[in-house]
Amino acid sequence: MRTPRMAAGPADRELLQQDAGSGAPYRLLVAGLECFADRGFHATTTRDIATRAEMSPAAMYVHYPSKGELLYRLSRLGHADALRATLEEAADDEDDARPRLWRLVRGFAEWHARHHLLARVAQYELNSVPRDRLPEILDLRHAVARTLEAEAERGVRDGEFEIAELHESVRAILSLGIDIARWYRTSGRRTPEELATIYADLVLRMVLPRDPVAATAHS
Amino acid sequence: MRTPRMAAGPADRELLQQDAGSGAPYRLLVAGLECFADRGFHATTTRDIATRAEMSPAAMYVHYPSKGELLYRLSRLGHADALRATLEEAADDEDDARPRLWRLVRGFAEWHARHHLLARVAQYELNSVPRDRLPEILDLRHAVARTLEAEAERGVRDGEFEIAELHESVRAILSLGIDIARWYRTSGRRTPEELATIYADLVLRMVLPRDPVAATAHS
Repeated sequence: MRTPRMAAGPADRELLQQDAGSGAPYRLLVAGLECFADRGFHATTTRDIATRAEMSPAAMYVHYPSKGELLYRLSRLGHADALRATLEEAADDEDDARPRLWRLVRGFAEWHARHHLLARVAQYELNSVPRDRLPEILDLRHAVARTLEAEAERGVRDGEFEIAELHESVRAILSLGIDIARWYRTSGRRTPEELATIYADLVLRMVLPRDPVAATAHS
Repeated sequence: MRTPRMAAGPADRELLQQDAGSGAPYRLLVAGLECFADRGFHATTTRDIATRAEMSPAAMYVHYPSKGELLYRLSRLGHADALRATLEEAADDEDDARPRLWRLVRGFAEWHARHHLLARVAQYELNSVPRDRLPEILDLRHAVARTLEAEAERGVRDGEFEIAELHESVRAILSLGIDIARWYRTSGRRTPEELATIYADLVLRMVLPRDPVAATAHS
């Protein structure tokens, strides 16, 4: 067995522990997360995960009937927590669309930096989630996108935002958050909160109304 | 052997053919691209690739000594062509930083949509490129980032752009392009050029100077 280069960070461990306690199911979630992040779902065997968790494959089956089921649990935890973190930031009773969108974006981006290992598995192994489990995961994803889209639409309606291509702009906002999981390292120059704040500022610039002359200067 | 769900598109095929001709080396590049995109580098065996190319593993070794070497070839082709496409767009003798940055972003984003399969392998399998081949790939990546950063810096110096966090803003611009490879489908609602044009517009909004009152309305 190869030693995974990826190690679950404290934020991911805490989240998995909240879901699975501190016994074997938790150790298997951590082991699965590290193996999937390191070599991908398809290259990971049930034995790899069990060995990493210092258990036998048979003991793993008691808790998770397949590696696909384990991936589904990780993906659901990740997507549900990303949604929670995004909505939580915007839960304040703000009347103005600007601080609301700003907080949503900051929450989403910060989650992807803080949970970059879990985010990577949740985002990049989506195609490997068992087919019968996929609708639940897609619902969670759509909830994030719908929230951002509704907020952007509301801002346009109220005259606070100016968004020529709503669908693609929401895609772009999601991309900024999701791609953090690909490159973020804990040893980097920015904390998750610092990075997310910068990104939320950038997104607000994308949607705030502009001087029409300046906005068309590139054509 | 499983049939890959991913099939190389015409743009990728043309690029690989330019590099490798139309014989066995080309067929192996296509097979490697499809296998890596479908199941990841670690889950792909030399036999998978050879079988997909309707060859024996021994015949593959004549052309590529390892699957790592084949990944390096794909990654180099992808990164080199992304750099070419990015620079090509901005090759015009433009004096103004705005159209120059706009074209760079459009070229980079469009490449990632048009070559989304090759882009996915080049971007997401970077950790699997053989260690001795990695510096060459990283040089190509840095060239793209440096070009964007130099253009952004020049715009700030000339008073055309207003960028609070240069490093993170360039990161964000790169993310918008790279993440296209994760979600783009040929069957989607936008052509590569349409999508890239929308993204270039969004990026320009991020960097153009703003009314200071509007820009701080969220804090």
